Amino acid sequence: MKIESVDVGFYNVPLPVVLSDSTHGDISSFELITVRVTSENGQEGVGYTYTPGTGGAGVYALIDKYLAKHIVGKDCFSVESLWEEMWWHLHYIGRGGAVSFAISAVDIALWDLKARCLNLPLWKLLGGSSNEVKAYAGGIDLQFSLDELKKQTEGFLDQGFRAIKMKVGRQLLSDDVSRVASIRNMLGDDFPLLVDANMGWTVDEAIVASKALSGCGVFWLEEPTIPDDVEGHARIASEGGIPIATGENFHSIYDFLRFMKAEAVSFPEPDVCTVGGITVWMKVAALAGAHNLPVTSHGVHDITVGLLAAVPNASYLEVHGFNLDPYIDKPLELRNGFAIASDRVGHGVNMDWEALERYRATF
Amino acid sequence: MKIESVDVGFYNVPLPVVLSDSTHGDISSFELITVRVTSENGQEGVGYTYTPGTGGAGVYALIDKYLAKHIVGKDCFSVESLWEEMWWHLHYIGRGGAVSFAISAVDIALWDLKARCLNLPLWKLLGGSSNEVKAYAGGIDLQFSLDELKKQTEGFLDQGFRAIKMKVGRQLLSDDVSRVASIRNMLGDDFPLLVDANMGWTVDEAIVASKALSGCGVFWLEEPTIPDDVEGHARIASEGGIPIATGENFHSIYDFLRFMKAEAVSFPEPDVCTVGGITVWMKVAALAGAHNLPVTSHGVHDITVGLLAAVPNASYLEVHGFNLDPYIDKPLELRNGFAIASDRVGHGVNMDWEALERYRATF
Repeated sequence: MKIESVDVGFYNVPLPVVLSDSTHGDISSFELITVRVTSENGQEGVGYTYTPGTGGAGVYALIDKYLAKHIVGKDCFSVESLWEEMWWHLHYIGRGGAVSFAISAVDIALWDLKARCLNLPLWKLLGGSSNEVKAYAGGIDLQFSLDELKKQTEGFLDQGFRAIKMKVGRQLLSDDVSRVASIRNMLGDDFPLLVDANMGWTVDEAIVASKALSGCGVFWLEEPTIPDDVEGHARIASEGGIPIATGENFHSIYDFLRFMKAEAVSFPEPDVCTVGGITVWMKVAALAGAHNLPVTSHGVHDITVGLLAAVPNASYLEVHGFNLDPYIDKPLELRNGFAIASDRVGHGVNMDWEALERYRATF
Repeated sequence: MKIESVDVGFYNVPLPVVLSDSTHGDISSFELITVRVTSENGQEGVGYTYTPGTGGAGVYALIDKYLAKHIVGKDCFSVESLWEEMWWHLHYIGRGGAVSFAISAVDIALWDLKARCLNLPLWKLLGGSSNEVKAYAGGIDLQFSLDELKKQTEGFLDQGFRAIKMKVGRQLLSDDVSRVASIRNMLGDDFPLLVDANMGWTVDEAIVASKALSGCGVFWLEEPTIPDDVEGHARIASEGGIPIATGENFHSIYDFLRFMKAEAVSFPEPDVCTVGGITVWMKVAALAGAHNLPVTSHGVHDITVGLLAAVPNASYLEVHGFNLDPYIDKPLELRNGFAIASDRVGHGVNMDWEALERYRATF
């Protein structure tokens, strides 16, 4: 089945509430890059990627000017060879970074198209047997007051979440510890509470913080330091005593392999929109399984729920997707604390193109 | 001294001869992305980066839409903090790849501007004491017949080169061996002959090839396999017995550190246009020195000659710069086999903007 056409879109979508963490500062809008791949039988697959506000125009240009032309006329079912071709077509400026974002959006569209052509939900095409996925609510709340943080936590509990993540990395470590202790107190001992430092610490700061948080039953510590420091993460894991989650800033399978080999990560977190798409996400999940590790996720819950539903070693899905809900026809369904992968064909995320149109970005 | 304005250009420049290697296939044009940074005193610094034909529009967009705006109004002398700001401003889609190309072009312009404001040649600002740099001619000649290869070699010798690099990675290893042996025969025993596989081999193929080439006195073997495989390079170096050069596909200092720590590289080859600019190139050189290694280069000889002139551990400069000579006012000077860093202020590369104009690329 040949690829007939590829349409690329670029949008700057405002957020209703300004978000903040220890690395990205204030985030008031997100950039959305969309890809619509149409096959010669008239089916359409949709893919997308995003940024927290900067860089998206580069990703758009990479798809629009290079990848789109490169795949037109080729067999849309050959996701493996199309992926390899895209990787090598842009390898000179790639090996990760913006190129992986560009490939991700196209690869997601190709998998969606394939599942639609085969009349299957994506998670079934990928081999899953149940569409229920453990999920946690991801708060972006570093600057919240303790009251706001507690209110957010109550909201998450009301929504039925059975696991919650909060940010750490405030000016004072004692502040982090008292905030985490307060939320732990609200949740009771057995409720998974995850914390995320967004690379805010040095290795030694992270070890000190891990020890200071040792009484709070932290389920995982996410991104304690920069993703380039493999040995540092291994030290934080072994000396700090809290399992490490990381991966949102990894943009190739090689980043994950390095961390797994070095026992520097316990919860690999590939982001399907930034690691190279579904093709790479599934390989990272397999790599994790071979290393006796679970796989979790970052962002894009609407698509990732179907991937976690497909693999045998799924950990929690991060429920956080910026502000996409107003622009898709059916937000993620939560049931008894589980996220439910859609039974619709493809990945099941249908964009409201008209609603998005007003946010189309210009050059 | 504040930055007044930043002008970004994007050009698609044809090559007079189609080039080929084992990875990039046929290269008929290169993409050139230029940056002109003007300070409030009216001085202008020029930076640029390039690709062998794909991806440049993404790099252009990253500079034009994000980095340019981000640095206007800031102190043009603060190259370190500007570099850090650029890295973190685009970190989410960065950590290497296209973002490092974008930062490189801006960083080169900032260093050029700084040297011009201080009325110094760049290599003197950076601490060098002599402007003579050992140099080799880099052939892109994998598909050349043996006769063409010999003719090219004669041309290099006529130009006064005292070191030459040729491509390997042909269909048959025996073909590589006989070609290298022929050129070695032309050059005599003591003439440095380098070979470049452009990632064409698996680790074991590279080890077999290294052993097969052991009689040819190969000075270094460049990019035997993919740059993501650190341990593989360490094996090729130790089992194959030929020193390894690599780095043109490294886009951060972390890539170089990993290889040096693992004894996987003997000749680190940072490309100033793709590693993050002069700021990172100098740090990679220092990192190499600390590891008791020389530093060499990739591409962009017009700028790199000044960097190698500045450091105490310089190896050979690669003389290869696509087809930039018709668009600059003074091509690289060679004297007794040495490349000469320009005594003009800044990096000394002055673009002929009018000549370039006809190749301006549109979106």
